[in-house]
Amino acid sequence: MTESEIRHPNIITLTTDFGTADTFVGQMKGSILTIAPDARIVDVTHEVPVHDMLAGAIALESVIDVFASGTIHVAVVDPGVGTPRHAIGIETDDYLWIGPDNGVFTAVLARCPLKRAVALTNADYHRAEVSATFHGRDIFAPAAAHLAKGVPLTELGDPIDDPVLLDLPKPQFDGDNLIAHVLCADRFGNLVTDLTADHFFSELGQGSEDQVHIQIGSIAIQGVCRTFGGVEPGEPVAYLGSGGRLEIAVRNGSAARQFGTSQVRLIFP
Amino acid sequence: MTESEIRHPNIITLTTDFGTADTFVGQMKGSILTIAPDARIVDVTHEVPVHDMLAGAIALESVIDVFASGTIHVAVVDPGVGTPRHAIGIETDDYLWIGPDNGVFTAVLARCPLKRAVALTNADYHRAEVSATFHGRDIFAPAAAHLAKGVPLTELGDPIDDPVLLDLPKPQFDGDNLIAHVLCADRFGNLVTDLTADHFFSELGQGSEDQVHIQIGSIAIQGVCRTFGGVEPGEPVAYLGSGGRLEIAVRNGSAARQFGTSQVRLIFP
Amino acid sequence: MTESEIRHPNIITLTTDFGTADTFVGQMKGSILTIAPDARIVDVTHEVPVHDMLAGAIALESVIDVFASGTIHVAVVDPGVGTPRHAIGIETDDYLWIGPDNGVFTAVLARCPLKRAVALTNADYHRAEVSATFHGRDIFAPAAAHLAKGVPLTELGDPIDDPVLLDLPKPQFDGDNLIAHVLCADRFGNLVTDLTADHFFSELGQGSEDQVHIQIGSIAIQGVCRTFGGVEPGEPVAYLGSGGRLEIAVRNGSAARQFGTSQVRLIFP
Repeated sequence: MTESEIRHPNIITLTTDFGTADTFVGQMKGSILTIAPDARIVDVTHEVPVHDMLAGAIALESVIDVFASGTIHVAVVDPGVGTPRHAIGIETDDYLWIGPDNGVFTAVLARCPLKRAVALTNADYHRAEVSATFHGRDIFAPAAAHLAKGVPLTELGDPIDDPVLLDLPKPQFDGDNLIAHVLCADRFGNLVTDLTADHFFSELGQGSEDQVHIQIGSIAIQGVCRTFGGVEPGEPVAYLGSGGRLEIAVRNGSAARQFGTSQVRLIFP
Repeated sequence: MTESEIRHPNIITLTTDFGTADTFVGQMKGSILTIAPDARIVDVTHEVPVHDMLAGAIALESVIDVFASGTIHVAVVDPGVGTPRHAIGIETDDYLWIGPDNGVFTAVLARCPLKRAVALTNADYHRAEVSATFHGRDIFAPAAAHLAKGVPLTELGDPIDDPVLLDLPKPQFDGDNLIAHVLCADRFGNLVTDLTADHFFSELGQGSEDQVHIQIGSIAIQGVCRTFGGVEPGEPVAYLGSGGRLEIAVRNGSAARQFGTSQVRLIFP
Repeated sequence: MTESEIRHPNIITLTTDFGTADTFVGQMKGSILTIAPDARIVDVTHEVPVHDMLAGAIALESVIDVFASGTIHVAVVDPGVGTPRHAIGIETDDYLWIGPDNGVFTAVLARCPLKRAVALTNADYHRAEVSATFHGRDIFAPAAAHLAKGVPLTELGDPIDDPVLLDLPKPQFDGDNLIAHVLCADRFGNLVTDLTADHFFSELGQGSEDQVHIQIGSIAIQGVCRTFGGVEPGEPVAYLGSGGRLEIAVRNGSAARQFGTSQVRLIFP
């Protein structure tokens, strides 16, 4: 996508740790719609655990390739609001990303090469009065809204070369075994690991998915299936999930309850 | 409504057991908006208990007559995702319904006669890559989006004659008494039963609502009221709820806490 | 803003105690979109504690100045639904407000002078069939939708001169000390008090924010900061929050857990 193609997007997504009991999310939407009345706002999630940048990073990863090119993704997991941490706007091939420069975009940048980034320093694009504790409403939402109206990212502030990056968990070798780690569990108790499908297939090489031995806790799982349906109810199953990562489930049960966050050991053929 | 009148609706509702902590719902919306950028998406609920098709069926029933003709209703309560169960599209007089063919539309079809149904087999209307575990994003959302853009239901796949139906709870006679069952409790602790207003009035005949004796647990309630205001605070009350079913409440209290899911016995005059 | 300027707004916000597990909110949206298909609906919160008008009032206060002029704000915290309490429509300088006349707009009216109010008695603007238990769907949502389409407020019913007002908590003097009260805690455990920024600055006069002594529980806090970043992690901090009220936080911690809802004592210089 060329720069001109993403100058007039109108979808803005929100990923925050604000929850939905308070009115923070509603206020952000008010702030957006005041500037960009035609923006389409989509909630990705507001249940990122409080101040958990890593969980926010994993949540953001899930919007890649799912939203139309030109979508503006706003993330607010921001324990450092009001401190000298930067507010940042990031451009990748398909998307624009707005939020605190604290590493919450690490997983995104691991998959989508950085084209440019700016610190959101241009007060012309802030809310008239900026509170010291709610940049979601006063800086990030207005930035996204102005982008949705066609303001170029470079107008929003000064270039940044090195956005803050977190250390994301990565699978590690233990001899010939590959050790993957559980990143999170979803509502169904399915465990999402740090082993990506790409990494899995590169280790598998010419081997067959049926031949991979997997061990989690004291349980052995033979082979990687397409879906839960590949095993009997109550049985554990390993599969490549819809987000492009190895997952462990218990069909009609909860892998989270059965296995907690144990390591996952993979023995390739 | 003729077929042509529902060819270009643009409201899509979502009813799922996905919760809102994970990003599944956000991903479905991204999938819809990529195809149908002008669709209006409305969340009905995402808190259907996990894999509870009956609860999903009751939730779906509540949108009947409330949304404009032509609305497309998507339901995802789908324990069988990735197994041979069909994905289904259903047309009734006013609405289109998209989801797994596992009975989640049973209550809808009990009230809205089936006009036609298809299996969503036409891969032209699936997402480019279909995961085995997330048909909500990869099959149901695209189907709804294409319908919203005017693609006829019959384009989406092959006809199905007999959608899967669940056994819904129904009131039963015990001698002259009618026994109703609690389907669910709402946030206010009000108990929703399987006795519909239609059924209630047909049993009542020429009698008066005041003359109906109701028993739940060890408590007797005399008459069916219009609303909670018909009794004193703390008192139980029976009334025909906004969803067209007999409900039991405790004014300014919780019938769910007081009565659990006891049967409701009705003695008509 | 003149009356004519707010005749064609199209943003409708929703603030309720309905939660999101039931389908009440979805039904309200269906009711709105059936009448006003182009309305932009924004959820402020649906987690107002059940029947807590005071909490609803505080939640509503947070939308002031955040949404565009002409926005229509609907509030449903309505223990008296179906009793003789009025349904009310209120006009203030910038906004229209729709809900039960039970005091839920008290905090709004304390900040935004009442221009006019009507009882929503005109059945032409109700849903065809009005249930006795769900005015959110059958009266409030249609009223908001008709306003969004340009129907004047005065069409919706008969004038009301004296909307119901609650007694809101207010700071009180104990000798020279000002005692503020905790209204609520947010998701981050930050405590929001009944001391407004305006009131704070009027007490402060020519003094400096650094010189205010604050006591909560057995803890003394020196001065009012701009943000959490003004203290070390784990330390308590007092600041004027994004909603225009004095708040107490614990940086990277929870003031709610540490202090509960203790009174806040302020000693001005």
